[in-house]
Amino acid sequence: MTYAAPMVQANPSKPSVDVNALVECIKACFDCAQACTADVDADLGEQQHLQEMVRCIRLCLDCADMCLTTGGILSRQIAFEPATARAALQACALTCKVCGDECERHAQMGMAHCQTCMEACRRCEQACNTVLSFLPA
Amino acid sequence: MTYAAPMVQANPSKPSVDVNALVECIKACFDCAQACTADVDADLGEQQHLQEMVRCIRLCLDCADMCLTTGGILSRQIAFEPATARAALQACALTCKVCGDECERHAQMGMAHCQTCMEACRRCEQACNTVLSFLPA
Amino acid sequence: MTYAAPMVQANPSKPSVDVNALVECIKACFDCAQACTADVDADLGEQQHLQEMVRCIRLCLDCADMCLTTGGILSRQIAFEPATARAALQACALTCKVCGDECERHAQMGMAHCQTCMEACRRCEQACNTVLSFLPA
Amino acid sequence: MTYAAPMVQANPSKPSVDVNALVECIKACFDCAQACTADVDADLGEQQHLQEMVRCIRLCLDCADMCLTTGGILSRQIAFEPATARAALQACALTCKVCGDECERHAQMGMAHCQTCMEACRRCEQACNTVLSFLPA
Repeated sequence: MTYAAPMVQANPSKPSVDVNALVECIKACFDCAQACTADVDADLGEQQHLQEMVRCIRLCLDCADMCLTTGGILSRQIAFEPATARAALQACALTCKVCGDECERHAQMGMAHCQTCMEACRRCEQACNTVLSFLPA
Repeated sequence: MTYAAPMVQANPSKPSVDVNALVECIKACFDCAQACTADVDADLGEQQHLQEMVRCIRLCLDCADMCLTTGGILSRQIAFEPATARAALQACALTCKVCGDECERHAQMGMAHCQTCMEACRRCEQACNTVLSFLPA
Repeated sequence: MTYAAPMVQANPSKPSVDVNALVECIKACFDCAQACTADVDADLGEQQHLQEMVRCIRLCLDCADMCLTTGGILSRQIAFEPATARAALQACALTCKVCGDECERHAQMGMAHCQTCMEACRRCEQACNTVLSFLPA
Repeated sequence: MTYAAPMVQANPSKPSVDVNALVECIKACFDCAQACTADVDADLGEQQHLQEMVRCIRLCLDCADMCLTTGGILSRQIAFEPATARAALQACALTCKVCGDECERHAQMGMAHCQTCMEACRRCEQACNTVLSFLPA
């Protein structure tokens, strides 16, 4: 149902990093962007706790944007530029870590939407770090 | 692995349309955005046919953007506005149809990446139309 | 300081609509996207009125996304597709109208950031309608 | 005509960095995103040189995305996170540099659209570096 794997395979340009790591990271980026977008909205619906959710909303907005940008960069295989990919992946991994930490605080207080968003952030952070480990230094 | 369904369920605001149709459309929008982003790149790698791919590249760029916007609008359940959702879904369904038609032409000439992208566009077009059928007129 | 006009002029493909209307609409779309993004944040800072700002935040998020998508579609002159451009412009004009109306309510209660965002939305709505009037029916 | 300055001023949260540097960087990011989006399209119209433009197209796509993400992060003043802002700004400055260098090659061969896009990239790179100089280490 997701198209990341067949699109990587069918691309005339060879991927510059391990295919499995690349596909997982592309999927994790787009999935995390959707989860963060949805978590912003779920946070806005927490009427009794709205003030406490402001930082989470802000970080989820940043994270959704950064994940889409990084997922887009990784979806492109032609004229791949390791240096810019590295900078994007580092920014994305950090943004996911900070956002995931904030979501975890709310998850521990029982917010299921923040629990799910935290999982999306943790997975994306790890996927970015895995691709980083395959990039030339 | 995708978070659309649990995020819809955990949202404090009830969804305004059928849950299954909503979740499928959110997933289809994000998946189609990724497929179109990747197809732009695959088209750029078709060195012998680059000139013929220009219209496909342009339509895939439009389609990726419109799918992300529509997927974002549908990911928000609070203060849901049927009129703007309807306009976005109509624009997205049409953009997916036009892009899918162009991808189909190249798929028929053997380009596997355009075949996959066409499937993503067709699925997203249908998912948008299904949500439209649940929206108040 | 903005590059919309020289980029339209230097493009090897001729624009499909009136150049002045096109350039103004591209600028209005990107400017409105920035204003809406900033207004989401300003609304989140309205600690005493946070609950009342929720609808404004949601509509500004939708509007920012739709304006960027429409601004992108209009920035592309090659293989221009009047039908999809029309659908995007209609969705954008409506989204700007609904968002501008909500911002106006808060502007009337003294929120300067919503006043500015309302002006951005009104300008973009009008710019989209002007381009629509130049598109073949 | 741009709203970055009044939106920063009207925001209930104080900006975390020098206001002039912040406003200029927000404007430079959105302007560069538009220029890069338009340059992708102009490159696609260079029928006699299409193959030579592929790297420029790819880098402009990356740059447009990264500029929008960074412009969005800087448009948010509440719960500002210097570490993630820093990573985004570094990634954006580098992406603008690499894209600007590629555009410069084509500008020197007479492509006016790449000349304009190069100017947008250089300005944005510098604006990001200026904001970085104001961020706590």
